[in-house]
Formats: sequence, structure tokens, C-alpha cells
Amino acid sequence: MPRTFSASPVRDLLALTSRPEVISFAGGLPAPELFDVEALRTAFDQALSRRSLQYAPTEGDADLRALVADRLTRRGLPTGVDDLLITSGSQQALTLVVTALLEPGAVVAVEEPTYLAALQCFQLAGARIVPVASDEHGMVPAALAEVVERERPALLYLVPTFANPTGRTLTAARRAEIAALAERHDLWVIEDDPYSELRYRGEPVPSLASMSDRVLYAGSFSKVGAPGMRLGWLRAPASVMRTLVIVKQATDLHTSTIDQAAAAVYLKANDLDEHIREVCAAYRERRDAMIAALPSTVPPGARWSDPDGGMFVWVSLPGDVDAASLLTSALERDVAFVPGAAFYATTPDRSTLRLSFTTNTPDDISEGMRRLAAVLR
Amino acid sequence: MPRTFSASPVRDLLALTSRPEVISFAGGLPAPELFDVEALRTAFDQALSRRSLQYAPTEGDADLRALVADRLTRRGLPTGVDDLLITSGSQQALTLVVTALLEPGAVVAVEEPTYLAALQCFQLAGARIVPVASDEHGMVPAALAEVVERERPALLYLVPTFANPTGRTLTAARRAEIAALAERHDLWVIEDDPYSELRYRGEPVPSLASMSDRVLYAGSFSKVGAPGMRLGWLRAPASVMRTLVIVKQATDLHTSTIDQAAAAVYLKANDLDEHIREVCAAYRERRDAMIAALPSTVPPGARWSDPDGGMFVWVSLPGDVDAASLLTSALERDVAFVPGAAFYATTPDRSTLRLSFTTNTPDDISEGMRRLAAVLR
Repeated sequence: MPRTFSASPVRDLLALTSRPEVISFAGGLPAPELFDVEALRTAFDQALSRRSLQYAPTEGDADLRALVADRLTRRGLPTGVDDLLITSGSQQALTLVVTALLEPGAVVAVEEPTYLAALQCFQLAGARIVPVASDEHGMVPAALAEVVERERPALLYLVPTFANPTGRTLTAARRAEIAALAERHDLWVIEDDPYSELRYRGEPVPSLASMSDRVLYAGSFSKVGAPGMRLGWLRAPASVMRTLVIVKQATDLHTSTIDQAAAAVYLKANDLDEHIREVCAAYRERRDAMIAALPSTVPPGARWSDPDGGMFVWVSLPGDVDAASLLTSALERDVAFVPGAAFYATTPDRSTLRLSFTTNTPDDISEGMRRLAAVLR
Repeated sequence: MPRTFSASPVRDLLALTSRPEVISFAGGLPAPELFDVEALRTAFDQALSRRSLQYAPTEGDADLRALVADRLTRRGLPTGVDDLLITSGSQQALTLVVTALLEPGAVVAVEEPTYLAALQCFQLAGARIVPVASDEHGMVPAALAEVVERERPALLYLVPTFANPTGRTLTAARRAEIAALAERHDLWVIEDDPYSELRYRGEPVPSLASMSDRVLYAGSFSKVGAPGMRLGWLRAPASVMRTLVIVKQATDLHTSTIDQAAAAVYLKANDLDEHIREVCAAYRERRDAMIAALPSTVPPGARWSDPDGGMFVWVSLPGDVDAASLLTSALERDVAFVPGAAFYATTPDRSTLRLSFTTNTPDDISEGMRRLAAVLR
């Protein structure tokens, strides 16, 4: 018999929201109308060659690694080419780290709620998941210290900037405390960072990885470039990199040679920062439209996050409601969201829900929030 | 501390053979001069769109799955779209099957010698690997029956057609016996089949998967199309497919949307069978050149396989020699091969070596074999 694992409710649900009349706040997708299609087409054409169609080194395309290392360094995380492994999206980086670092039965500490495909990845590895308390400024270091003492986790998983699903950002002071804790207790940390370049206000916060060699940093082309290319990168200390490369090799030999080569050509020929500024300008308007609509969408007593960036707003409804049953009514009114329960490793708060603002125009967001108000209020 | 795994000696060695003056029989690469570059360039250009740059369903591109299902059906393996999961190369298919089917400590039965990256994959999963005796006609069913009785393996791994590293093909009669054994003992089987379309003589042998639902079939675009696109497919019964899709989702969400879309466009617009005939015509000459040179390359008493297809010839040297130490001398003479020991899960036969004939012209093969003769004789 095959082993039994539970499917992602978000992906099952995405199937239901594909009717064109549905205004969906459910997905975690970037807006396709903002993809840099023609520049990417040119990049693929220039990159395509006998070499880019052949097998390639497991570590990844040397040009792409150099370009990513340079970007990370300019953003305050000093990185050399050999510190990077190219992965098939940052989702794969999680799988590789878990395989490289965790013995069966190991403990993984997570924020709660957190990114559900990370939870799935830890569950598949047979890890025991232990939640750590957090508030609107992210994970609470004292709560982590207590969990480290009691549970001896091997790994801490964090999306410290514009978290999925909450939109929250861990403060710089807390980052320093968590990095110090990791060093003191030989705790490995994954800093999953797909969103930090999608900042709509305020100043960048230093990455956790810049504070300690115990932090493995996962980045992605999916939110700033195009997710269909499935390109991510993992920055790891040399002590772990050797094992990571062996694991990657056994997993899929290497990531698509042509996709890597096209990304390298694209990054050389184009100003990604300028493209990201355009994406941020559009997402900022969408974020603002959603935040502006929230007071008249949710019932009195509801609370919501007010993210400085990223893709998500997190809503807590008052009283004893189950967002999963509200979703059925919402779909009848052609609007969708993700019930929050799926993002909890342990005891779900069923009165929560996640709204994504990236794939709808401000007008559609206003209309979708009106439909949602009829369900929630 | 990270866990410790051993690296693939083949990939470490490939680094040593990249000097242009080396004639390498070491790699397992397809010949890049035979890639259908311009047709693939056109396919990428036509496939590139906002949709092919976006996230996509875990199961894979519906058009590509239909095209692959149709190809498999025409080749004698009746397959529907829902029987197929697109993977990031067939290497990933192995990882997914192992994660979906094996509990830690499970037993995997393998031919010995066999494909070493499969061995790595089973080792990473914490499986115990048990070899089954084989001869020039592939795995010996009676030996498998004995291993099944004694070791109760959960999984049998086979490259039944033009095996890596031996080039051997399992006979149809033995396939039927092994399929029956699998059914009788609830044994899962992986039929890893990257090479069967590279046939240079003789008639096709029915696939194992056509004989039993206990057989999961892994195919690949790498040897007939282009390995850089990292596209494979896994055909599995519905009872296992649901779990496989969940595992794939947690592993990397899905395979590159653009690479899948380009492959679908390519398969629709081009005659892959005609392309494969051209590849086979070139490889047949190379195979023949290597086989013709062998009697004057190896010492008296050596034996070698005489493959009907695929990429490899397997050589057993007489006496107490270690092919690994001969490789050092070979590299001094600018010729390379893979010592056979790496392909053994248990007790290696160090007097063996693998020669690949695909990436050199007949003239270069003749010259390389002359260099090799100076080392081996």
C-alpha cells in the first residue's frame, strides 16, 4: 500500500476558483499581466543552444549563480558563487535541506500559522512539527527559547519577511535574538525569503542569514520573475553545501539547464530592479485597495494584518465561526479565499482566513470585497 | 551536523574528463550534435506565454501528458492521461516513488550492477538494498523469487531494456515471470526505461508495465529529446498516483511550465520517431565501431556485452585487476571510462568497467580504443 499523506487544500481549492466569474483572493500567484514576457522570450531564444539542452552540473549554471550572488551581496547578504545551489523553485530548497539535515523523527520548529507546503514537506520527511508563538512582529524569541529548551528542535523554519499567510515581518531586533539563539544551541534555521523584494513601504530589514552561519537562505525567481521557470537558490555554509549537492543530485540530477541559462541571459540583459519597481507599484495599489475595503468587508471585532509588502492579508473573524463553511457561501457569490486552518501545524484557529491581493485589479478587489462582505458580515 | 552521504564518483570523474584532448567513454550523455536545436528553439518561442510562465498543476501539462500517453499506447503500453505524472527527469520519478512507497528501513531489490544514481536515491531514503543475481539475459527470476522469500522487499528496481551499466535486456519470458512474481507477492516494481527507443537491431520487447499493475513505469525525454529540459514521466496505477501527486507537490510544486509547454509544442509539430531514427542511425555506427575495436582493445580472456541498443558496453577484465587504478593511467593517455565498482550496491567486481559510445564519432572511438588498448593490454 502507498503511504498516506494529506493533499494541500489550497491546491484542491484552486481548482474550484478557476471559473472566470470568480474573483479569487485564494491563490498565491504573481500577476501574469506583469510578467516581462518579451524580454524572457528573447532570453530563451538567446540561451537556447546545444549546451543549454545538455546535462549540466548539479550545483547550477555558473553565470546564474554569479548573478544571484551579486544581487544578494548588493542587498546586504555577502554571497559567493560557491555559497549557492540552484534549485527547482524554493520549494525544492526546503526538501533538500530537510533531507540533508534531518534524521527521521527530528523536531522542526515553525511559526503558527505558516506556509502550508513547508508543513507538508516536513511531514513527508517524518519530522515532528512544534509551533512557536508569534505576534504581529513575528516569532517571539522568548517563546522560541522555551521551545528550544524543551523540544531540542534540529531545525527552525521561518518566512521572516512578509510571511505567508500572515504578511507579518520579523523585526530586526528579534532577528538578532533568534540568530544568537541558533548559534548558542546549534540550531539550523531556514530563512524562506520569496517576498522581501516586494516591499511597498518602509525600509528593508537585514536578512537573518546575514546574522549567522546557522541560517540557510532560500530565494526564488517565482515572485519577481516568473514561477513557471521553477528557479530558486539556496545559500548555505560550506559544511552543509557538500551534502546538499549530493542530495540534489540524487533528487533530480540538476535543475533545467535551459531555464537556468535563460534566467542568466535575462538578468544580464535587463534591469530586474526596475522590473520589480513596476511590479511593486501595481501590487501597492492592490494592497491599498484591499486594506481600504476591509473595514466595510468584515464584521465589527475582526482584526487583520496591514502588511508592508508581500502578497497576503490575514484576517481573524470574531466569535465562533468556521471560515471553511463561509467559503462555500463565498463561492456561491463568486468570490474565494483560503480558510486559515490549513496553515496551522497543530491546533487550527478556524476563524482565520488568508486574502491574496496580487492577481486582481483595484476595481476587481473592491467588487470582490463587496461580495465577501455579504458573506462575512 | 549534516547527514553524510557519498557523492557519485561518475560526476566527480566527469570533471576530470572535460579537457578537450580527452576522448571520454565515461559520460552517460546523449550526443549534443544530434539535438534537434532549431525545432526546439521554435517550440520554446511558440510555447512562451503568460500562461507558460505561471504556476501550473502538479500533475503536469495536460497536452504533454496526452501526447506522452498516446506515444506509450502506440508503443504497446495502453496509457491514459490520468495515468501519467510529469516529473523533472526520470531521476525525480525514482525519488517520488521511493517517498510514496517506502517506509524507512524498507528493502529494495536491485540488479547488480545497476544505475548508480538509483542506488543513491534508495540510500538517501534509508532503504536497505539487496542485490539479485543476473546474467546476460538480465535478472534471473529464480534468484528474485529466492530474494522475495528471504528479504520481503517492498520494491524491485529494474532497467529492463539496454540497462545502465551493462547494456543487457531482460527477455520477454523473464519479464512475464517477474511480473507474475510481483503480483503474487504484492511487490512494487519500478521499470526505469530511458533507453528502449534507442534500439539498433532486433525487435522491441514488451514493457514490464504492460504485464502488471504492480509496475510503475518511468520514461524520459532526456535520451530521445534533450536532457537539459529535465522532463520525464511516471506511469502509475490510480492507487499510487494520488500519493505520488502529493509527494511531487511537496517536493517542487510542479515541473517547469515552460519546458513542459515547449515539449508539447515540439511533439505536436515534429515527428519524434523520425528524429529517433536519425539518432539511432548515428549511435548504431558508434556502437559498431566500439564493438569492432574491442577484441584488439582488451586483453585475452576479457568479456564484454554486445548491446542491441542504449548507450553502454560493459567490460569484465580477466585476472585480479582494479579498473579504478587503470583509469589513472587511461587519463594520462587522454582516454576515460567509468570503473564498474560504483554500480554495485554490495560487493563490487573491481575488474569491470563501463564504456559509453554515444558522444564520440566512429573515428574518435577507434582512436580512443587504441589509447585504451595501451592501458588494458
